[in-house]
Amino acid sequence: MERGVITSTRRKLLALLALLAPAALLGRTAQAKDAAGPMDLFTAIKTRRSVRKYTADPVSDADLRQILACGMQAPSACNEQPWRFVVIRDKAILAKVGDINPYAGFAKSAPLAVLVCGDKTLEKCEGYWVQDCSNCAMNMLLAAHALGLGAVWTGIHPLPEREQGFRALCGLPPEVNPLALLVLGHPAEHHQPEDRFKPDRISQNRW
Amino acid sequence: MERGVITSTRRKLLALLALLAPAALLGRTAQAKDAAGPMDLFTAIKTRRSVRKYTADPVSDADLRQILACGMQAPSACNEQPWRFVVIRDKAILAKVGDINPYAGFAKSAPLAVLVCGDKTLEKCEGYWVQDCSNCAMNMLLAAHALGLGAVWTGIHPLPEREQGFRALCGLPPEVNPLALLVLGHPAEHHQPEDRFKPDRISQNRW
Repeated sequence: MERGVITSTRRKLLALLALLAPAALLGRTAQAKDAAGPMDLFTAIKTRRSVRKYTADPVSDADLRQILACGMQAPSACNEQPWRFVVIRDKAILAKVGDINPYAGFAKSAPLAVLVCGDKTLEKCEGYWVQDCSNCAMNMLLAAHALGLGAVWTGIHPLPEREQGFRALCGLPPEVNPLALLVLGHPAEHHQPEDRFKPDRISQNRW
Repeated sequence: MERGVITSTRRKLLALLALLAPAALLGRTAQAKDAAGPMDLFTAIKTRRSVRKYTADPVSDADLRQILACGMQAPSACNEQPWRFVVIRDKAILAKVGDINPYAGFAKSAPLAVLVCGDKTLEKCEGYWVQDCSNCAMNMLLAAHALGLGAVWTGIHPLPEREQGFRALCGLPPEVNPLALLVLGHPAEHHQPEDRFKPDRISQNRW
């Protein structure tokens, strides 16, 4: 056989190669993107932990917008979306958080905190703002984690003294209730994932 | 040239094929998995919508376990994890849901619902079970969506008549409070994503 002559068999092999090569390249690209790209939902949920120590690096406006946008995507009763947010970057305000909630004193060393509030005037189905705003805050914690940030939920509602403290600190009007303060930053501590699956918490059909 | 004789050129092509074929197959698997498998966190949050119509297909035990496991990963006050779950597949029970909550009557056509409850005896930091269990249910809705299932949160707490109805329906003890019924199945309706970002909900430092 002569070199350079494309035979029927070689033609078939080349055609097969032409079909396979782009698929292989695409596959490699997709795999590379998986490694460094967006975090999958299950990984985000299963590896997220509370982070209370942060580096001095600021949180970018783009990351903050993504976190707030994810919060606002949450489901709510009657799709009422009753949330309001106070983004706190002012160090003088962050320094006062520990006076209201001693378990959140580390906020003074964070670049940023978000006060997640429920606006009673936005409720369409009365009594659901706590659940709505919890869903919102849950999404925000997951978004922060998927962005490589560290975050923690610090509780406010239903403790009256904390509600009153944050109401005064941020000048909230009476119809706006502070639910939680999410403290955020680039993590300076890293916790191992914790498997919280407890099969004994599950009943079938009846208790 | 004789058919069946492996020439030097064909040998090189075959060797190249042997190298590329597994990569191509892997690539195709990865691509197929990307398309139908793990969904990134931001896509999950931004494309999830409430789904109330389902096909007759059952929800697999593996998917249900994944959904419950994601729920149990949620953050909770003092890490108290006060959640309990009643998985309802019994059609006779699902058929009665509409008697308690007329907005959830479609549960009778679902393969499955999960009653998410808070156990007051598991609370370490009093007053937080609603927020804890909301976080849990939020994770479950995201997990269902990322698995290709459709789900919706139907409200129970704090409406006394619904709480009493589900308490009786599932035989809950007094210390266990039903928060919400999540209805689940393979989606028979598909909604476009809804962009809920509202920049006017965001204040800086103070209201």
